[in-house]
Amino acid sequence: MESSLYEEMDRIFHPRSVAAVGVSEKVTNQGMSFLLGHEKLGFKGPLYAIHPAKKIERFETFPSIKDVPGPVDYVKICVPAKSVPSVVSDCAEKGVRCVTVFSSGFRESGTEEGRKLEKEVVSIAREGNVRVIGPNCMGLYAPESGLSIRVDMPYIPRGRIAMVSQSGGVAISASLMASEKNVGFSKVVSYGNESDLGPPEFLHYLSRDEQTDVICLYIEGTRRPDDLKAALRDAAARKPVIVLKGGTTSTGNRAVASHTGAMTGASQVWKALAAQCGSPMAQDLDEMLDMAYLFSLSRPPKGNNICLFSVSGGFGVFATDQIISAGFNMPELDVSTQDALRPYVDAPGTSIKNPLDLAAQFFQPQNYPYIFPALDADPGVDAYIIICAMEYLTYLNEKAAEWSGFMARSLMDGLSAMKKPVYVVFYNTVLTNVKHELEKEFIARGFPVFPDMGRCLKALVRSRTREKKRSCL
Amino acid sequence: MESSLYEEMDRIFHPRSVAAVGVSEKVTNQGMSFLLGHEKLGFKGPLYAIHPAKKIERFETFPSIKDVPGPVDYVKICVPAKSVPSVVSDCAEKGVRCVTVFSSGFRESGTEEGRKLEKEVVSIAREGNVRVIGPNCMGLYAPESGLSIRVDMPYIPRGRIAMVSQSGGVAISASLMASEKNVGFSKVVSYGNESDLGPPEFLHYLSRDEQTDVICLYIEGTRRPDDLKAALRDAAARKPVIVLKGGTTSTGNRAVASHTGAMTGASQVWKALAAQCGSPMAQDLDEMLDMAYLFSLSRPPKGNNICLFSVSGGFGVFATDQIISAGFNMPELDVSTQDALRPYVDAPGTSIKNPLDLAAQFFQPQNYPYIFPALDADPGVDAYIIICAMEYLTYLNEKAAEWSGFMARSLMDGLSAMKKPVYVVFYNTVLTNVKHELEKEFIARGFPVFPDMGRCLKALVRSRTREKKRSCL
Repeated sequence: MESSLYEEMDRIFHPRSVAAVGVSEKVTNQGMSFLLGHEKLGFKGPLYAIHPAKKIERFETFPSIKDVPGPVDYVKICVPAKSVPSVVSDCAEKGVRCVTVFSSGFRESGTEEGRKLEKEVVSIAREGNVRVIGPNCMGLYAPESGLSIRVDMPYIPRGRIAMVSQSGGVAISASLMASEKNVGFSKVVSYGNESDLGPPEFLHYLSRDEQTDVICLYIEGTRRPDDLKAALRDAAARKPVIVLKGGTTSTGNRAVASHTGAMTGASQVWKALAAQCGSPMAQDLDEMLDMAYLFSLSRPPKGNNICLFSVSGGFGVFATDQIISAGFNMPELDVSTQDALRPYVDAPGTSIKNPLDLAAQFFQPQNYPYIFPALDADPGVDAYIIICAMEYLTYLNEKAAEWSGFMARSLMDGLSAMKKPVYVVFYNTVLTNVKHELEKEFIARGFPVFPDMGRCLKALVRSRTREKKRSCL
Repeated sequence: MESSLYEEMDRIFHPRSVAAVGVSEKVTNQGMSFLLGHEKLGFKGPLYAIHPAKKIERFETFPSIKDVPGPVDYVKICVPAKSVPSVVSDCAEKGVRCVTVFSSGFRESGTEEGRKLEKEVVSIAREGNVRVIGPNCMGLYAPESGLSIRVDMPYIPRGRIAMVSQSGGVAISASLMASEKNVGFSKVVSYGNESDLGPPEFLHYLSRDEQTDVICLYIEGTRRPDDLKAALRDAAARKPVIVLKGGTTSTGNRAVASHTGAMTGASQVWKALAAQCGSPMAQDLDEMLDMAYLFSLSRPPKGNNICLFSVSGGFGVFATDQIISAGFNMPELDVSTQDALRPYVDAPGTSIKNPLDLAAQFFQPQNYPYIFPALDADPGVDAYIIICAMEYLTYLNEKAAEWSGFMARSLMDGLSAMKKPVYVVFYNTVLTNVKHELEKEFIARGFPVFPDMGRCLKALVRSRTREKKRSCL
């Protein structure tokens, strides 16, 4: 059942045509970069450059939005703050649905002039039925519909993660970081000053968006706490919403003041709100993305019982300590599981308890079709963590690229037979470049990959918060 | 002033010749891999293969150690456990200084037979004046003197980190991980069952070794707690000794039992000992190496006052929260510093407080020679953290490789003017391969690089433990 807000937002995310106001020929110009970004993502409608005097090579140019012959649905405004009201007024006259105001120098500047200017923009827009994203933001990125923030936004097909970010830099870094692992975003918005549209509207839409499995929310503060609260509660009941709150300390709030000037609110209030909604909180972008990968590729463990699978005994030992210290159990494998494993894991140095230590028998992938189904069938285990490193896949560096590919793919095939979640901790040791490619393959096969045990456990513990909450809802 | 133990150990680390017992032609054979490893590292003396019946291609072969014409100082024994006593007996007769017993099937097997066999080996060795490393271990790796564990051990010149590890896998993974960042080890030993030589002897030696700045100790348990305690106390007073204790939980102890079978001792005892010695404890290999890089390339902050330097406002905000939550302060920069920075950091979006946010003015490296000395002179700051990511170095992906190289090197040049420690948090976003090369350059210039803020702060907080302790010593 779709609301009218959903429909309005869906139209904003699917404009028939796009224009930039404030464009020069340089690729580093925001307006130009924005238009080139749309071209690169294959935006299907017309792209217009607005320039009062000059013809911009490469894009159809008009002196004003009002001069464009057909409809214009979405406009990015990159002119100095004081010129923004008249551009918005033109947009209203033209019937533009939504503008992103990139320009800064509004409320976030802390000046009376900036505050007045922002109010003026909002009132013109409201009167003219134009929705405003920003000011002081980057706007929309939605690869499937060809919406871009700037020229280097990646196209990764079928992304299932959405992001709502008060900061443009965070939205861009997150999109790039994920793309480097071949993980795509469905829809991203950088919303800045939240003069009109903000998290309440975007959470409402994205939690109902069929292309989105999980939502990342980076927020520094809000002027609509009640709306936000209601929207977060509603969205988190539908999908995982991971919250990264900027400004949880008083010094962090000082940094917010010079960044977006948002009112941050007390840290405890945010924590309590997230806890009530079952929304896991992240403290860094890495942590937020780790959880987003986990929720979109796999799922958190249903219970506290972990089986660890290692090749190096030492790693198996301290990883066990880390897992236990994080609050999980590592029960000994069931007798039936041990019986099933014994024929394949019997050499000196191996162990069929928990951690399962394959030692050199790891290099017998012909046994994987027996080992992994047996592990998966263990009645006492909720999820599996595998410790991997390039030197395990390329014993003594012989034919490193081929062997590691063969071993990693054998492992993926074996793991794919398992129904319970499997998480891969892939330490970066040697052959960084080969490792990077294999990591992408694990991810493409649906296995979340973490760079160390600490990051893996943090993601599991925090994502379990949601599971636990959900079981009470 | 050097002790006789130091001299004995120094001779062990500088053998005139090396032999392997139990060698076949295959590179995956332990003995062969060991000899090839020495060849690869340029070991200067003769390398002998011992085989009772066969000539081994590539190495001078003798049927027994006793048949080698010249002296043999160091022998790796890779024959089945039950044959080890007679080989050690041959070594004693030949006057060998030290053997590494790779073979397992001794005390760690948990059998009466294994225990007896280990006792026999030790008694033969003791009588014959042969020192024993192991059994159930990998032995010595010392790139400068050409000692290797196996064929793929790296040669990184002038390594300043030493490692004493009960686990061979951990010793190898650590050496490989560091080499991937172009960081070398001075001397590494995997000592296994500690039937004779162990941490007390190696700590004594390495803490006096002029090639070593910092020692990593991976330990699961000991049978000589008093000796270990004294040696750790002595070593930690001389150099940082970072301790990773395997088996700090009861489940971890179960894993130890099937790994090295060591007696682990209560977790609290180990923590108290480390605290007394001012030895930082790590929980994972990554954390241990992070601190080793920190101590060998730079130093922990002298006080609690950190200045954060960022390019993305959002990152600046939550990184500030992380720094404060870790127990540090981020004081506003001094008025004199702000005055000195103002001419160069004045555009919209920048901030000259703390965090220092350069925003787009980051792309004006011509100002670095003014910015960094001004920062360094701030009287209220003990150390600096810089947040970096590839997309900051390659604005809009134009000529990514060249530009990022230029920007990163400008940054390194700028930072090199600073006398207080600078730590680099280099997020892995886009262009993993280029980032990997730039990271090595930062490290070569003496800047510790961390993959995320969490890892950086963990290393700083734990390394400060030592600083705080030292100030009381």
